[in-house]
Order: sequence, then C-alpha cells, then structure tokens
Amino acid sequence: MGALDEGHFNGELKDNGVKINKCFKEEESESIRNIKEAVKVLLQGLGEDSNREGLKKTPLRVAKALTEGTRGYKQNVKDIVQGALFPEAGLDKAVGLAGGAGGLVVVRDLNLFSICESCLLPFQVKCHVGYVPSEERVVGLSKLSRVADVFAKRLQSPQRLADEVCSGLQNGIRPDGVAVVLQCWHIHSPEAELNSASPNSNSSKHDMEGWEKILVSSSSGILGNQNGDFWADFVSLLKFRGVDVEKARNQTLINHHWCPYRPLDVVCNGHSAPKNPLTHRVSCKTESPLLAMQNAVSMMIQSLGEDPSRKELAGTPHRFVQWLMNYKKCDLEMNMKMNGFGSVHVQDEFRSELNIQLQSLCEHHLLPFHGVVHVGYFHSKGVEPIKRSVLQSIVHFFGCKLQVQERLSRQIAETVSSILGGDVMVVVEANHICMISRGIEKVGSSTATIAALGRFSNDPKAKAVFLNSISNATAA
Amino acid sequence: MGALDEGHFNGELKDNGVKINKCFKEEESESIRNIKEAVKVLLQGLGEDSNREGLKKTPLRVAKALTEGTRGYKQNVKDIVQGALFPEAGLDKAVGLAGGAGGLVVVRDLNLFSICESCLLPFQVKCHVGYVPSEERVVGLSKLSRVADVFAKRLQSPQRLADEVCSGLQNGIRPDGVAVVLQCWHIHSPEAELNSASPNSNSSKHDMEGWEKILVSSSSGILGNQNGDFWADFVSLLKFRGVDVEKARNQTLINHHWCPYRPLDVVCNGHSAPKNPLTHRVSCKTESPLLAMQNAVSMMIQSLGEDPSRKELAGTPHRFVQWLMNYKKCDLEMNMKMNGFGSVHVQDEFRSELNIQLQSLCEHHLLPFHGVVHVGYFHSKGVEPIKRSVLQSIVHFFGCKLQVQERLSRQIAETVSSILGGDVMVVVEANHICMISRGIEKVGSSTATIAALGRFSNDPKAKAVFLNSISNATAA
Repeated sequence: MGALDEGHFNGELKDNGVKINKCFKEEESESIRNIKEAVKVLLQGLGEDSNREGLKKTPLRVAKALTEGTRGYKQNVKDIVQGALFPEAGLDKAVGLAGGAGGLVVVRDLNLFSICESCLLPFQVKCHVGYVPSEERVVGLSKLSRVADVFAKRLQSPQRLADEVCSGLQNGIRPDGVAVVLQCWHIHSPEAELNSASPNSNSSKHDMEGWEKILVSSSSGILGNQNGDFWADFVSLLKFRGVDVEKARNQTLINHHWCPYRPLDVVCNGHSAPKNPLTHRVSCKTESPLLAMQNAVSMMIQSLGEDPSRKELAGTPHRFVQWLMNYKKCDLEMNMKMNGFGSVHVQDEFRSELNIQLQSLCEHHLLPFHGVVHVGYFHSKGVEPIKRSVLQSIVHFFGCKLQVQERLSRQIAETVSSILGGDVMVVVEANHICMISRGIEKVGSSTATIAALGRFSNDPKAKAVFLNSISNATAA
Repeated sequence: MGALDEGHFNGELKDNGVKINKCFKEEESESIRNIKEAVKVLLQGLGEDSNREGLKKTPLRVAKALTEGTRGYKQNVKDIVQGALFPEAGLDKAVGLAGGAGGLVVVRDLNLFSICESCLLPFQVKCHVGYVPSEERVVGLSKLSRVADVFAKRLQSPQRLADEVCSGLQNGIRPDGVAVVLQCWHIHSPEAELNSASPNSNSSKHDMEGWEKILVSSSSGILGNQNGDFWADFVSLLKFRGVDVEKARNQTLINHHWCPYRPLDVVCNGHSAPKNPLTHRVSCKTESPLLAMQNAVSMMIQSLGEDPSRKELAGTPHRFVQWLMNYKKCDLEMNMKMNGFGSVHVQDEFRSELNIQLQSLCEHHLLPFHGVVHVGYFHSKGVEPIKRSVLQSIVHFFGCKLQVQERLSRQIAETVSSILGGDVMVVVEANHICMISRGIEKVGSSTATIAALGRFSNDPKAKAVFLNSISNATAA
C-alpha cells in the first residue's frame, strides 16, 4: 500500500532537481482524471464509500500506479538503444567468436513485472536475454533490461512479451541473433488458493507456491533455430543459474491458458464472455452495476492507450470485475459459537495453527496481497481444539474485502478470541503486490503484523512460545 | 554499463507524460558540469583518452548516476510520509495490542543501495524495519521503504544509516517505537580478492562471498530497549526470514572498520591520510596528478551537496583515488611462453579451470564488476597443464583496467590461446554494480559472455563438454 501517492510522484520529479509540479499537474490531468472516475465506479460497485478516509485517495493512487505500470506505451526501443552502441573489436588473428563479433552475451535473472491482458492483474517475470554481437559493436548491458521493460510495462501475455522483446532487440541492435526466455508467475484466484490448500498442512509455504507458472521463449537470427548450437550455448548459460529450459518447457501444459481467470473454453471461443464457475456469484446480482463497472474498466484500458476492442482484451473488463467482486463489501458479521469453549474454563494448553493461506486486496491500490496467517491460542484441556478449516474460513472471510494488513490481523484475532475466550495471538505474513509490481519495486520484501490479545499481550513467555513454534516450522 | 545515459534520464521524465527536457537541461547543468569535469581529470589520471569512443560519454554517465545515487540529499521524510498516515482502529473491547494501537508492523527484506562515505563505492543493504503504531493510525507500508531510501541515497556508514532511518521514522510517524536492522555488504578490493581466493578451489562461489559484511541496528521508543519484549518480537519476525540478529551481531568484529579501504589505524586517528599497504603503488608515482585527482573527487563530493571537510569524508578522496588507481591503464603487453606448449603438438586432452576470481571496472560508469572466469582448453597428453595461478594472473591483469565484459572475455581467450596454441574457450560470469546500484536496480542479475577460439568455435561437441563441466561444478 502507499506506493504511489502524490508524494511519490512529485518526489520522483524532484529527484532530478527540477521543480515542475505545476506543468506536471496540468498535463497529467486528462487520462488520470478518466481513470480516477473509473475507479470510483468500481469502489461503488464493491459497496464501498469512496469518501471514507482509507479510500479517499485510492482512485488517484490507482490511476497513477496504472499509468506508471503501463508507461511502456509511451516508450520506444530506438530512444533507449541509440547512444548505447559501443565499438568493440572481435578477434584479431585467431579463428573464433569473441568480443564484438560473435561472442554470445547473456544477461540473466532480470526481475520484471507486467500486466496480464486477460485480467489486468500484474504478473511477475524473470527475464533472461541474450544476443550475438555483429559488426564489431556491443550494446550497453542495462539496455537489454530496459528494452525488456518497455514491453513488460504494457498489457501482455507471456508469449507476446517474449516475442516483442526479441523483435525489439533484433530491430534495435541488429545483431546476429537474439534469444529471450521468460519465466512468468501469475497470482491465483482466492477460490483456487482456498481449494488447493491441503487441509492439515502446517508446513511452511514457498512465497510463489500455488502461482500459475509458465516458461516461454522467443529467438531470431542465428539463435532462431532452437535445435542449433547457438541456442544450446544460451540454454547452457541459463542452466548455470538453475534455469532448466527444456525441463520447464516439458512441464508447461500446451492447451492450458495460464491466466486462471481465462479458462480453456474462452481461449478457444475468442470473443465470447467466459462461462466460468466463478461467474455465478457475480451473475446473481442485478446486472446494471456490473455493466457500469465493466464499462469503467474499458475506459481505464482506453485511457492507458490500449484498444479495448483488441481481440485479447475483449473479455478483460468482464474478468477483472469478476475477480474484483470477490472482495465486495458484505455487511454480514461473523458470529460463531463453539461447544465446550468459553472464558469460564481454565485455558492452559497452548495450541497453534500455522501457515493458513491468505489472499486479500489492498484498499490503497486495489492490488492483491497474499501470504499466510499463524494463529496461537490457549484452550481448555480435554476439549476438542478449533478446527483448521474454521480458522481458514475466518481468514478467508476477512480476506475477501478491501483491507489493510494491520486491520486484517486485528479482525482475525478478535473473531478467534470471541470463540475461544480471550487469549489469542495472530501473526500475518504477506507479500504486497503493490510493493513489488509498481512504484518502489521491492522484490522479495514481506510484511509481518502481530495482534496479541489477552495473556499474549502481557505474558512475554506465552508470546515467545508461539513465535518459536512459527520459527521452528519455518526452518523445517 | 549503460545504465544511465541521456536516454535513461529523459526516459524517466517522459514516463510521467511531461516534456521538460529543456528546463531540465538548464537546471541540471551546474553540478552535472562540475562532476563531468572532475571525471575527466580522473580519466586523465588513469592514463585514458577521454575522447575514445567508449569513454566519450562516461563523464556524463558518471555525473548522472552519482546525482541519482545521492538524490536523498534533496528529499525529506515529511514530504514522503504526509498523506500516507491512515486511521486504523485498535482493539474494540479486548485487552491487547493490535491494528493501529500497539500491533507491531514489520517490513522485511527491502533491498537498498547506499554509497560508502569512506571510499565512494556503493554498498548493498538488506533493510528490515518495524514500528509500533500509536494513536490509531498506521503508515502506508511502502513509505517505510521510501524513507529508508532517502537516507540510503547519501554518503553513509551502515550505523549512521540505521540511526538516520530510525530517527527519520520516529519523527515522521511519531509511533510508539521504531526498529531498524540493516545487513550490509561492501565490495572487496581487487588485491584482497586475489589473495583470499584459495589457489586450487574449483568450486562455485556464492555471489556475495568474500564481501565485507556487517549487521547494524537502531531503535527508539518502546523498541529502544534491545533486551525488552517488543524488540524480542521484532527479532523473532526477522528470524522467520532466516535473519538471526544475535548470531550475526556476534560475528561482527567490534574494532574492525568494515570499509576495506579504511583500515583500523585510520579509524582511530581520524583526519590523517591512511597508511595502507595498498598506498605504495600509488605513492611511487609523481604526486601532482594524484593530488589533482583527489581535488577532483573533493569537488564531486561538494557538487553532490556534501561537505568534503566533514570528519568522516576527510580521507575519502584519497581512498577513492587509491582504489581507482588499481585500474590505471598500463601499456605493458602480456607475453608468456611456457615450456612444452605450442601449436605443433597434437592437443587432445580437454582441461578446464573454473571459478577464477575476477574484479574489474566498467568503463562506462567507473563502477566495479566482479565474478568468475571459466577457462577450457585442449592440451597435449603428458605435458603439465597450465597452472591455475598463471590463469589467475592473466585474469587479474586484464581486470585491472577500464573494461567491458565482452572485451575482457576476448582478451583472456586470446592470451591463453597465445600460450596454448589456439583451442581455448572462456566464459565470464559477472555481476555489474552499475546494473544493481544505480539506474535500473536489477538485483541478482548476472551477465555471462563467451569467447570461443579455434576448435571450440566450430566443434559443438567440444563446446558442450566445457559448458557441461561448468554446469556440473555449479550444481555441486
């Protein structure tokens, strides 16, 4: 949350020592204003009050983050590459390939982010790019990354992204050949998360586990033949970094669209709106607010400089709204009572449930955050402990609305406490997509929050027992 | 290389849809022009021709990268935090700490870069920051990262950086307490690299191995007591991510200055110029060009908005120039002949030397790149193979000048080939500080280049044997 409010935007400009706030605000207004209006429609559709404190600036934050996240539409390869081609000799006397004539150059493990054209959610990319210099010139290494980023900062599918990076470099540098391999990860739907989590698993989860993943490649020139020797060299250099292109490729299902919001039938039918099991929750509402939301998303797409009627984007507003409606505000309160629990009992046995899957939506950016919840509590001996599936439901209930992690932790703790009678501690660990995909791009950062109720708030030993149990499970 | 030429700078501004190139260039000119002049003096001192193609734009690139890398001097915490404080309730009825009142919030694993005030080389930081909200308000998570970055983008020592981030957040957010832990890595000197590399080690090296590392912390408010319960919670949450604060702290030597260019005696004496074993190489030259270089560095520091007479910066120009002179151009040619080798022999036995340590200086940014070199060759049966120490010397010789990785690979291959008679292949794998510390900030990216001579350039099997041998060693 908070990655891209006004402070950030002005800050970036000030970095260069130029005060241009005034002219910036004038020029910015048109597309930003359109997107802001669209976001207000979406918040309304979610049943939220866009004037409440936490949401007041959300339309502006989303508009700026989205504009920044699609800046590639305003960039071109030529501007980046020109002035960064350097003369570099090849071999003087010997026979072979080296330096600026034939010596393969590969930059590996470039972390990028792109936006899925099927659902508008960000996806994470590890990009590996190589080229074979010709005519005794090489390109500045960072330009390979920057050219890749031009195409990543657009609405994309993995294969189109690979193809565009490849042809962009081939045309921009004119080398003997270009090779691109992308490893891409797409966030799952909350429903898929919930269903796939093994019910009794207390084990630690890898950050990217459960994400849809895919490996794609594209190549041209003397690297174009993926059975050839140059391609084999490229693949070998990736293997040094643990990337096994052949193995990953074999694991990729061919007839399976990677975006979880775009099932197979939609891919085959093209334009038609998806017939998706997730749809029914949305379609039982009245249609008009949903249509208004979809139209708002179309306007957002147009404001970014894309054509909402492009084939691949035809179903996108529908899918995005469908996904967003998972986080519709509901006025239900969670009231639970369980037999055998209550504050009258002596609660002396410590128990914990670790790594309960979480997915939620940051109310400052309308972007997902996801991770795990650990719950510790004391309960009466001889009484059956609270079921993991009940805790999972509580986490899911509070995850499925606009949130901030601090509030989510408190709400889970309060609800569990209302069942179990007071002594409850909750630790939430989550990765915030808004921290890594836009603005500050802090890959690998992770946020932890604590809510400690009753005994856990004033008995350091109780707290330590719980925190150690998480530590041990994480290490194992 | 190539991270920050004009294209990049203009590109960043264009991202916001504003054309301000004109006013930007006017305002930019003063400090940029001063730094450009200083860099020209440095290039001259290195014996380089600043008009040769690869160096033409180096002064501009360095000036812009340095300005960008110290943008923190122009930023302040208040601008960042204001507008990002959100009301967030604490517990309603229950006793305890949660949400906006007492619920610890920690953001872990923020990758940052800073500049060592002792030697002007960048150092890498993994920042972990936490705070305890008070008065029912929380701060946008990304602001913790952005505030840390304000202080990282200045000339720093690890401890001062931790202290400034801590007090910046304490004053900016006014929470109940703030805690900061920084893990910092400082690049080694080329001499230290060379001497520490175990002579027969063929094993793969971790990217950060051999770097100076240190863990520092700072805390305030209820987190100020590092024997207290709140600090214990903070440390526990870091442990979940594999950061053992106590263990790391015990491993940090107390009377040891972490910057390898600032040995203990200098720390104790304060102002005096360092008496350093590395100095003699520099001091046997005439003094005046060195003094001119040091004055140029002082001017650079001043142009960035710092005071070159500040106690900690007093010896910095000396140390920076001393380090830079490791890469002085030398007109020596490497001529080697070894007994028993020559192209007349039938060379049928494949051999390789892997993971030879490399450190060099990118001629586009005057920033280090470092990594390993793998050399494969065929040699005659019954003849003693080339010694690893000889290959290490060749790598060191070509590393110790302004370079690009493509050229370095070719030069090493050509030299080894001149000794061994033709069939040589060289793979260089390196991390470029300019790719990760400034501009595009691609942490973890790594560049591989290939030079394949003689049989290796036209016999795919020979090449595959060598590449597989690297792959196997890397995996092991």
